[in-house]
Amino acid sequence: MKQNTKTILVAGGDLRYVYTAGMLAEHFSVYAVGFSRAVMPFENVTLLESAGDELPQCDILVLPMPVSDDGVFVNAPFGRQNLSLRGLLGAIKPGGIALGGKFGKTEKLFHESGIPTVDYLEREELALLNAVPTAEGALQILLEELAYTICGTRILLLGFGRIGKRFASILHALGAKVTVASQDVAELACAEMCGCRAVPLRELSEHAGEFPVICNTIPAQILTASVLERIRSDALILDLASKPGGVDLAAAQSCSCRVVWALSLPGKTAPITAGEIIARTIFHILEERGVS
Amino acid sequence: MKQNTKTILVAGGDLRYVYTAGMLAEHFSVYAVGFSRAVMPFENVTLLESAGDELPQCDILVLPMPVSDDGVFVNAPFGRQNLSLRGLLGAIKPGGIALGGKFGKTEKLFHESGIPTVDYLEREELALLNAVPTAEGALQILLEELAYTICGTRILLLGFGRIGKRFASILHALGAKVTVASQDVAELACAEMCGCRAVPLRELSEHAGEFPVICNTIPAQILTASVLERIRSDALILDLASKPGGVDLAAAQSCSCRVVWALSLPGKTAPITAGEIIARTIFHILEERGVS
Amino acid sequence: MKQNTKTILVAGGDLRYVYTAGMLAEHFSVYAVGFSRAVMPFENVTLLESAGDELPQCDILVLPMPVSDDGVFVNAPFGRQNLSLRGLLGAIKPGGIALGGKFGKTEKLFHESGIPTVDYLEREELALLNAVPTAEGALQILLEELAYTICGTRILLLGFGRIGKRFASILHALGAKVTVASQDVAELACAEMCGCRAVPLRELSEHAGEFPVICNTIPAQILTASVLERIRSDALILDLASKPGGVDLAAAQSCSCRVVWALSLPGKTAPITAGEIIARTIFHILEERGVS
Amino acid sequence: MKQNTKTILVAGGDLRYVYTAGMLAEHFSVYAVGFSRAVMPFENVTLLESAGDELPQCDILVLPMPVSDDGVFVNAPFGRQNLSLRGLLGAIKPGGIALGGKFGKTEKLFHESGIPTVDYLEREELALLNAVPTAEGALQILLEELAYTICGTRILLLGFGRIGKRFASILHALGAKVTVASQDVAELACAEMCGCRAVPLRELSEHAGEFPVICNTIPAQILTASVLERIRSDALILDLASKPGGVDLAAAQSCSCRVVWALSLPGKTAPITAGEIIARTIFHILEERGVS
Repeated sequence: MKQNTKTILVAGGDLRYVYTAGMLAEHFSVYAVGFSRAVMPFENVTLLESAGDELPQCDILVLPMPVSDDGVFVNAPFGRQNLSLRGLLGAIKPGGIALGGKFGKTEKLFHESGIPTVDYLEREELALLNAVPTAEGALQILLEELAYTICGTRILLLGFGRIGKRFASILHALGAKVTVASQDVAELACAEMCGCRAVPLRELSEHAGEFPVICNTIPAQILTASVLERIRSDALILDLASKPGGVDLAAAQSCSCRVVWALSLPGKTAPITAGEIIARTIFHILEERGVS
Repeated sequence: MKQNTKTILVAGGDLRYVYTAGMLAEHFSVYAVGFSRAVMPFENVTLLESAGDELPQCDILVLPMPVSDDGVFVNAPFGRQNLSLRGLLGAIKPGGIALGGKFGKTEKLFHESGIPTVDYLEREELALLNAVPTAEGALQILLEELAYTICGTRILLLGFGRIGKRFASILHALGAKVTVASQDVAELACAEMCGCRAVPLRELSEHAGEFPVICNTIPAQILTASVLERIRSDALILDLASKPGGVDLAAAQSCSCRVVWALSLPGKTAPITAGEIIARTIFHILEERGVS
Repeated sequence: MKQNTKTILVAGGDLRYVYTAGMLAEHFSVYAVGFSRAVMPFENVTLLESAGDELPQCDILVLPMPVSDDGVFVNAPFGRQNLSLRGLLGAIKPGGIALGGKFGKTEKLFHESGIPTVDYLEREELALLNAVPTAEGALQILLEELAYTICGTRILLLGFGRIGKRFASILHALGAKVTVASQDVAELACAEMCGCRAVPLRELSEHAGEFPVICNTIPAQILTASVLERIRSDALILDLASKPGGVDLAAAQSCSCRVVWALSLPGKTAPITAGEIIARTIFHILEERGVS
Repeated sequence: MKQNTKTILVAGGDLRYVYTAGMLAEHFSVYAVGFSRAVMPFENVTLLESAGDELPQCDILVLPMPVSDDGVFVNAPFGRQNLSLRGLLGAIKPGGIALGGKFGKTEKLFHESGIPTVDYLEREELALLNAVPTAEGALQILLEELAYTICGTRILLLGFGRIGKRFASILHALGAKVTVASQDVAELACAEMCGCRAVPLRELSEHAGEFPVICNTIPAQILTASVLERIRSDALILDLASKPGGVDLAAAQSCSCRVVWALSLPGKTAPITAGEIIARTIFHILEERGVS
C-alpha cells in the first residue's frame, strides 16, 4: 500500500489503538483523540488533547471495540474528557466512513447521518490473526501456573476452531500430548491430522479424568458439575471462552481444581500486535472499498 | 525397571528433590531427610524429621547439586537442622554408593571412607533433558516481557548447543524468525537445517542492531560494550549463560536496553520435571551399575 | 462404534473401495460386488462373483465416485461383468439408503424408487482428510523430480485451502521457504501465521520468476501465458487443481519449464488410506442418521 | 566469502562434483577435469577435455570420495580418459593442498611429495548437512513403497544419530507415530524430547512386531534372524546403514517382509545439494586455513 492523501481519525480505545494509529500513519494522515493519559510513541500521529469543535475533518473514523458502553460516549479509557459520538459524527467528511468493533445500538446514529459503518470484528482475517496473541497468552498462563514442563504433559483441548487450532499447534510443538474434544466431525478429523488424539465431545465425561490440564475454547458451558466431579483434583482448567464462559464456576469451587478464566488476551498480552492486527484489517477494508 | 529391594536415602536439596524422591520411590525403598519445611506429597517416601544416629542404613545416598556449600553440611534449604556429611557417610551400607551433583572438595571425604561417588551432573542425558525446562522457562520470560507476539519477531540466538537447539525449535514453531550466531561451523549448519538463518559469531556486531530480542546461551562474555552500543534501544536481552554470564552488565546499564539474566531455570519454572529428570538419570546410573 | 446388525453392499469402485469394504466390515455385515479382478485381503467381507438376482438384500448400498460414467452401469473397473444400477436398486431393503460420490443424473433413478441418497463427497471431513494423501502424493512428486533437497528451496504455493494448508505445513517442516499467493486476505493471514511469506495473487507476475518450484491448488487457470513467460526456465510446476487445471498448457510448452499435472492423488498414492477415509465418512453419515 | 585469486582444480567424481565446482567458482578460479561425459552448466568453470601436462597449476586440488579405487587413477566415472594421481600431483603449486574424501593408501603419495591432505569426509558439518538429503531420500522411498499415508503410521526407527534425528523430525512433522530404539540413554532422552516414544534397544524383539515400517540407521547387524521372525509379514524394512548393513538378508528372505537397502542417498536423490554441501565444507576448510 502506498502513501495516501486520506485522513483518519482514531477516536478512543485501549492501548492497542495507539499501535493501530501508529501503523495506519505509515500510509495515511492520522489524528488520534482520547489518548491523553497514554504515551504515543509515533511522531507521525497527531495527538489531539481535547474533544469538540476542534476535531479535524476526516475521511475515515476509527472507533474501538466495543464502540461505546452507554451509546452516548465513545469507549476511551485513556482519555481525560468524555468523547461524544455525536461530536465525532461531525468530524466525518461527506462520503466518509466509520469503522468500529461492535456498533450495537450506536449503529443507528451513524446510519441516520448517512454514514456507512463497517464492523471490523466480523472480518475473518482479524479473528484468525487474533488467534496468535490469544494462544501465546494462554501459553504464558500455562507456563506460569504449572510446576512441570508442557513437554510431555497430557492436555485436553475443548473445541478446535481458530484458537483451538493455533493453541494445539503450539502445544504440540512444545511436546505436549494434546487430546481434542469436539462435537464436529470435521474438527475432529482436522485435529487428528495435526497430530492430536480426537474424541467426540459427548464422551467428555469418560475422558476428563485423564488430564492435568484442560483448556476450553467452546463458548458454552461445557464443563458442567457432572464433568467437573470427574476431573483430577490437581487439574488446571484454563477457560478461553468469552462470557459467560465454559465452566460452571460454582461447581468448580466445590472441587479443588484451579480455574483460570482468561478474557481478551490479545489486548492484555500483546497490545502492540493486537493493535497492528486491527490496523491490517482496516487496510484490507479500505483496499476493498478502493480507498488506497 | 522392576520394584527393587535396595534402599535409597535422599538427603537435602531444593524442592526438585521432593519429586526426585517420589519418582525413585516407584522402584526403591526411599527415605528422605532435610525436607522438614517442605510438603512431601508422596506416601511411599518415608520422611525423617531429624538427622543423626537414627538414619536408616542405605545402599544409595542421593545428594543435591551442589552437594555442599561449606564442605561440612549438606545443602538442605528445606531442612530445619544441619545435616553433616560425616553423619550421612555413616548411613551408607558397605558396598553402597553416593550420587550427587558437583562434589567438589567433599569428594575426598567419600573416597577416604571407600565409598564410590558418581556425579550425575556430568551425564549427557541430564543436560539434554534439562534443556526442556530451561527453554520453557526462557519462553515464559519472553512472553511476560514482550508487548508483542513471538510469532513474527526476529530473535537472535547466540550459541546452538543443547539449550540453543531446543529454544530455537520452540521459537521457530511459534513463528519467530530465528537467527543463530555461533563460531562453530557445525552448529551453524545445524541451525540452517532447523530453519534458522545462520551467521558467524565474528559478524555479531554487524547484525546485532536488527533484533528486538537477543538471547545468549554461550558461557562467555559475548555481548561486550562494543556490541551493546549497536543494539536497538528497545531490545530485550535474555541471558541464559551461567555465571559470570554473557553480558557486560556495566555497559548494558549505559545503553537503555533491558537485560534479564535467568539462572537455574529448571528448578525455578518446573521443579517437578527437574526433579524427575534427576531421578531418571539416577535410574540410568544404577541400571548401568547393575543395581536394578 | 459397536458391531451392528445392518448389512452393507459395496458395489464397484477402484482399489480404494476394497479397503472401504474392509473397514466397514469391522462394524457391519459387508458384501462386495464388482471386484472380481482385485485381491480382497479381508476375510470378513463376502465377495460376490457376479451381479444380478443373487445380490443379498442390504440396508446400505455404497457406490463409488463417480457413481457411474454412463448413467446405466456402476463404475466398476475391477469387475468382470457390468453391474447395472437398476439391478442394484433391487438389492436395497425398504427403508434402505444409497451412499455415493457424485450421483449426477443417476440420482433421479434412486429418488424415483424412493431411496434416499447421500453424497459423501460433499462432506467436509472427507475433503479435509483427503488433503493428507494429496499432500503426501504431491511431496513424492517433488522428491522424485527435483535434483536438490526440498530443505532450503523457495516454493511458491498458489491457494491456501485445505490442500494448500497441509502441503505448506509439510514443506515448511522439511525446511522449504514457502511463499503463498492467494486473493483471499484471510488465507494470506493464515499463511503468515503458518510461517509462510504471503503475497496477494494480483502480484503473481511480479513474483513468479523467483521460484524454482511452483505448486498450484487453485481450480482456475492462474498460470496464464503472461505469468509463464516470467517463470524461471528450470522451474518445476506442479498442478494439483482438478480439470481443467490451473496451467495454460499450450503456453507452458513454448517455455521450457516442466509441468506435472497430478490428478486424484489419494487413490493413486495411498489407496488404503483413501479407502479408509471413505469408510470413516460413511460411519459418520450413518451415526448422524442413527444407523449405529 | 569474497572473490579470491586462488585456483582450484576439481578432478573427477560423480555428478555431485559438477555442482561442487560450480559453487566453488563463485569465489575461486575453477578448472574441472574428468567430466567429459557430463553436462557442465556453469560458465565460470573451465572444463578441461583431457588429462596430462596441459593441466593448469592450482593452489587447491579437489578430489572425489573415495579418491581412488585402485590407488593409481582418480575415481572419475564421467571422464573419458584415465586420470592418474601422479599426474595430478604435478598440477599442485608449491604450498598447495589436496582435499578429498577417504584418501586411504593414496595419502602416502601426497605426503611423499610434501603436499598436505585434508579429508572433508571427517568434517562434522558435512555429515550433519548430508543428513538432510539422506532423510529426504529415505522419505521418498517410503512414499513410493507404501500404499497408505505416512500420517498416522507407526514407524520404528533404530538409532538416533544425525540421520535418525533428521528423519524422525520429518516423519513426526508428517504425522507419523515414531518410536526410537537405541542403546544410548542420551539418544533416548533426545528422542523423547522430539516427540518420539523411546525404547531401549535391548527390548527390540518385544516391540518389533508392532510396526508396519522399520527403518534402521545403526551400522551393525541389528535386525537379526530372531528379531525378523517377530516382524509383521507386511512390514517394510528400510536400511540406511552403510555396508554391511543392519539386516540379516538371508533371514529376511525367509520371512515375507520387504527390505529396501538404500546406500549413498545424497548423491542419488539430490546431487545438486550434495555437491553444494561438499563445496560449503571446502569453503570452511579453506577459511580455517586462511585461504579466503
